[in-house]
Amino acid sequence: MAATSTPKTQQQLDRLSAALESGTFVDVKRMLNGLPPGDVAHLLESSTPRFRHILWKMVDLDNEGDIINELSDELRTHFLSDMDAAEVAQITEHLDDDDVADILQQLPEQVTREVLDAMDHQDRARLERVLHYPDDTAGGLMNTDTITIRARLTLDVVLRYLRRHEELPAMTDSLIVVNRNDRFVGLLPLRTLLVSDPSRTVREMMDTDVEPIPAYMPDDEVARLFERHDWVSAPVVDDDGQLLGRITIDDVVDVIREDADHSLTSMAGLEEDLDTFAPVFRTAQRRAIWLGLNLITAFVAASVINLFQGTIEKVVALAVLMPIVASMGGIAGTQTLTVLVRGMAMGQVSRSNGAWLINRELGVGILNGMLWATVVAVASSVWFEDWNIGMIIAAAMMINLVTAAFTGAALPLLLKRVNIDPALAGGVVLTTVTDVVGFVSFLGLATLFYG
Amino acid sequence: MAATSTPKTQQQLDRLSAALESGTFVDVKRMLNGLPPGDVAHLLESSTPRFRHILWKMVDLDNEGDIINELSDELRTHFLSDMDAAEVAQITEHLDDDDVADILQQLPEQVTREVLDAMDHQDRARLERVLHYPDDTAGGLMNTDTITIRARLTLDVVLRYLRRHEELPAMTDSLIVVNRNDRFVGLLPLRTLLVSDPSRTVREMMDTDVEPIPAYMPDDEVARLFERHDWVSAPVVDDDGQLLGRITIDDVVDVIREDADHSLTSMAGLEEDLDTFAPVFRTAQRRAIWLGLNLITAFVAASVINLFQGTIEKVVALAVLMPIVASMGGIAGTQTLTVLVRGMAMGQVSRSNGAWLINRELGVGILNGMLWATVVAVASSVWFEDWNIGMIIAAAMMINLVTAAFTGAALPLLLKRVNIDPALAGGVVLTTVTDVVGFVSFLGLATLFYG
Repeated sequence: MAATSTPKTQQQLDRLSAALESGTFVDVKRMLNGLPPGDVAHLLESSTPRFRHILWKMVDLDNEGDIINELSDELRTHFLSDMDAAEVAQITEHLDDDDVADILQQLPEQVTREVLDAMDHQDRARLERVLHYPDDTAGGLMNTDTITIRARLTLDVVLRYLRRHEELPAMTDSLIVVNRNDRFVGLLPLRTLLVSDPSRTVREMMDTDVEPIPAYMPDDEVARLFERHDWVSAPVVDDDGQLLGRITIDDVVDVIREDADHSLTSMAGLEEDLDTFAPVFRTAQRRAIWLGLNLITAFVAASVINLFQGTIEKVVALAVLMPIVASMGGIAGTQTLTVLVRGMAMGQVSRSNGAWLINRELGVGILNGMLWATVVAVASSVWFEDWNIGMIIAAAMMINLVTAAFTGAALPLLLKRVNIDPALAGGVVLTTVTDVVGFVSFLGLATLFYG
Repeated sequence: MAATSTPKTQQQLDRLSAALESGTFVDVKRMLNGLPPGDVAHLLESSTPRFRHILWKMVDLDNEGDIINELSDELRTHFLSDMDAAEVAQITEHLDDDDVADILQQLPEQVTREVLDAMDHQDRARLERVLHYPDDTAGGLMNTDTITIRARLTLDVVLRYLRRHEELPAMTDSLIVVNRNDRFVGLLPLRTLLVSDPSRTVREMMDTDVEPIPAYMPDDEVARLFERHDWVSAPVVDDDGQLLGRITIDDVVDVIREDADHSLTSMAGLEEDLDTFAPVFRTAQRRAIWLGLNLITAFVAASVINLFQGTIEKVVALAVLMPIVASMGGIAGTQTLTVLVRGMAMGQVSRSNGAWLINRELGVGILNGMLWATVVAVASSVWFEDWNIGMIIAAAMMINLVTAAFTGAALPLLLKRVNIDPALAGGVVLTTVTDVVGFVSFLGLATLFYG
């Protein structure tokens, strides 16, 4: 599906811009603070730095926490860096533990300490439980706002117990059943509670099939569990099966979005969770590294061409055709690499089927190599009225497309085994290989023939 | 975050492979049919064609519908193509309407007709309501399994009404309040129902702030609403405000995943929702078109080089250095293009801030152009002991990086305006531009100087 526009946000942005320009400051402020925090976060992320700054200053203090919580990491850090510990403590007061933990993890350690000190004992204890786990694990994703019940109660007692609450935590679709040692026993979905005879007990009606999530499970695995089981929330336990909290789908959606984003941005050498409207200097600085890295590989390819100066001097047509061989290798290799990186991110590629994928890609490389080598051979022969150059470029194209297929498939599997992110490193290594092999095979064969 | 492994799925796959190889067919069958449908779908998607076929044959007929429902489009079509209308009707009987609609939309029209004819009147009427809307709109995403109540009831009556149900539909987090004409009035969250005094009325406790989703809203906009408002489900209405059904977060998660996937696969010229383990011939066929398209652009670049044969003959070093200029332009342009495509997919880029982005990218292009032009100038001058060639490549690099920045930013905005998918077409056009401009500027300046 094509990228489509978002009329609503654009309308909001346009209306805000218009209001700002016509100077009705008070209207804009009221409009802005009437929007849901997610909408304001989206507006901030869709704004240029100057406009963003003006908008943020208009946000009421009461709304800052919720909005900060919805922002991407980069922008969040940006706004947080202007606050002191007391302000952070104040604006995060009413957020979920996992969200506060996320925010605290982005602050300098000393500020985090101060924020924790500013909290009451109970809040701090709960929060430290979440902070104990890395933020890309189930423990780092969880909230501690669970409603727990005991198995021996009747549903009628449970209903009366619920009515003693002011409100139930957001995304509560189940009550968590624990034993006297706080160990997870099962779930009582609200869907079940509401249709069951109130005189039944929790034990009779609860669902004990659910496997709770261990606190150290990586967040992408948690996301896949949610996707496959269509969960709205799920309990998190420690090694002893003791209930620590629960994960809710809204936080999982963020993980899914970030994971999917990771492959796209990393393959272009961009930081993940990037700020689309980052200012020019910061952007230039970040991109410079990637360009420098690619410049090195470009010089490697150039020095390969340099070896064949003599041959190119004799047959200048080689200089004309050589980029074709290198570029087709790069394109074919990138396709294979993307399929592998994507499959690995989706947890589809294992050791056993990795070998099958390399073979499949080799097959694809050979088939497309034969097809396009033939086309290139005919086109080049006709162009330069020289059947020899056609044969040479065909052979080089075949060699490079098969190399590209093998490298595109084997490289990410290898990189992953040595714990290097294939999405980030794969592209640079791959195009170096396809450039070098493309130039060496084409110019090398030509040297054998013409030299 | 780096792509991590999925121990659980891999263990399952490995165990299944082992069991299959040691011949305990019955065990495998029992194991497979004991797994949740999402897990089986993931196993099928992570399997090579042969193994996939064996697994599918072991799936019990009762489970086929749920598993088909969780599969990606390509695999789903594959398995459905072996079934006749009666089978499809049978396995989809207990699925949600939106899921059945998705499946029917992938079948030939005649089969869809037959499946609909095989259904009872009520099911057919409900399904036709969903089929009426394109599958990438809110209407196509919705289920019709809503529980509706009237505003004048007391909560006590509502609770008794719910208890008359066998079970509540999955992902029911709210009851939908409608008036006598079935027009949407508000939502009564279960969270509210459960903590409120049963003698209160629905009217007193319901939430009327919720804006229902119009049936023709594009699915990516629906997804953004869910993300920003942390919804679990949301009501869908027609133009008259009449309730049609509701959308649930599980279906929205699929939209989010697919949209994020779209940019990644399209930029590499791959079909979205692709089958990682598609067989060799089908894969080769699909990739061939993309390679052919890129071959044309490679020949365009080659014919540009061809114009400068005379100059290259005089100074062979030009042939050595020219790929550096083209490749750096391609890299820089791809970074810009990726930022734009991603920002557009996330609904952050509008007409007003598009101009700002073009300017920002131009600034980045100039800064990085100056930096790397200097580095390249020094490196080339030292290498070929010729300060002139250093000056020439520096000027060409500067021109190409600024062109790349402008093209990478302006092109997607332009393509979108003429309704061409920037993720798909952007890369091909961009690299053509950076190749041509790279070769023309470098070889052209060299011809002026050396010619």
